[in-house]
Amino acid sequence: MQKGVLYGVGTGPGDPGLVTRRAWQLICDAKIIAYLAPDTGDSFARSIVADAIAANAEEISLRVPMRPGRAPAQSIYDDGADQIAARLEAGQDVVMLCEGDPLFYGSFMYILARLKTVFSVRVVPGVTSMTACAAAHLHPLVARNDMMTILPAPLDDDALRQAIIAADAVAIMKLGRHMPRLRALLTDLGLAESTLYVSHASLERQFSCALHEAPDDAPYFSMLLLYKGQDPWIRT
Amino acid sequence: MQKGVLYGVGTGPGDPGLVTRRAWQLICDAKIIAYLAPDTGDSFARSIVADAIAANAEEISLRVPMRPGRAPAQSIYDDGADQIAARLEAGQDVVMLCEGDPLFYGSFMYILARLKTVFSVRVVPGVTSMTACAAAHLHPLVARNDMMTILPAPLDDDALRQAIIAADAVAIMKLGRHMPRLRALLTDLGLAESTLYVSHASLERQFSCALHEAPDDAPYFSMLLLYKGQDPWIRT
Repeated sequence: MQKGVLYGVGTGPGDPGLVTRRAWQLICDAKIIAYLAPDTGDSFARSIVADAIAANAEEISLRVPMRPGRAPAQSIYDDGADQIAARLEAGQDVVMLCEGDPLFYGSFMYILARLKTVFSVRVVPGVTSMTACAAAHLHPLVARNDMMTILPAPLDDDALRQAIIAADAVAIMKLGRHMPRLRALLTDLGLAESTLYVSHASLERQFSCALHEAPDDAPYFSMLLLYKGQDPWIRT
Repeated sequence: MQKGVLYGVGTGPGDPGLVTRRAWQLICDAKIIAYLAPDTGDSFARSIVADAIAANAEEISLRVPMRPGRAPAQSIYDDGADQIAARLEAGQDVVMLCEGDPLFYGSFMYILARLKTVFSVRVVPGVTSMTACAAAHLHPLVARNDMMTILPAPLDDDALRQAIIAADAVAIMKLGRHMPRLRALLTDLGLAESTLYVSHASLERQFSCALHEAPDDAPYFSMLLLYKGQDPWIRT
């Protein structure tokens, strides 16, 4: 019997209009949908495409406890991969939903690493939160021969400082409880006034402002954007 | 009279299936479409969404001479912005097509800079070639608290070397004639064996291989991907 195919499908930053045509069609046609979800509550990736999921589709919800500063145990991905592998072995395709893009800071890569040597896997790329945040501010991210660096906020101050100094354009992700530290660091570097803040990009509750107006208790789904390169046309 | 709205719409990396639902709908409904095109030949952004453009839509083709190593004259963007502004002043909306994402190494930002203080502008983000290249290889770009740097190949060797050493994950864009130099640099850094090459991601002529199999005469629309961070699950 022919094995099934695993599709890793990006659902974009949150607005269902920012799902690609291919992803939407795959989800509409899917008999088995998989996604990661927090230990309590709904899956963000699923919520984005809820209107596309067939009423009779089977759903595999992989519960991943999210704790600040701690990576989930790999055994959770082992279990999830096993559940998906059972369907693929039985010749059924599985569509795994991934917010943003599956291969850009996404947990899909842990399922992919476990299954790609045994099964056919295809990835449908998605719109990242990074470009959605830029769109929220009408802020060009990066141009011409600029160098852009993407930084997770949990990195330590020295690492952040060096990377910010070296880059022309910077996106700082996963702000959460690190926001006061980032604000102090950017102020110290003389860059606070040109830094922009966005939370929940593309969703109805999207909020964007200059850094000095941004809250200290930033959500996980928030980002700072900064351009310090040479191109005069894209300075904010 | 109410002025028109300028929409900057990402058309993604090349596959029409990777256009977002919002972008596709805006293009289908558009009475005026604008796009950049080389001085001779077709617009890549237009070719991606050709099937969505209404037969009676007016098309504004902004011809931008592309010369290796030289930025187009700003007067060309002045002229293009004037043409678009005339329609917006007359109360007509204009949908400007942009391959990839409008604000990520895109020329849309030069039109945006000229018009955003006078007219309403909305940006619809798109899938970038970077995540499409990762999908072509099933190659996770970046994970957890990794730092990712995006580098245009025309940068000089010292700048490239420092940035590659500092980052966990690297994407090197706009390869073209710089490919032999990049190959030598990555070999010198001991990273050649883990570097991946992709050209024309998501198009029918997509080509992907390891660096050592990649051609010396790489097209402009090609990229190198490299992961050198700590996460054992995403090493190639």
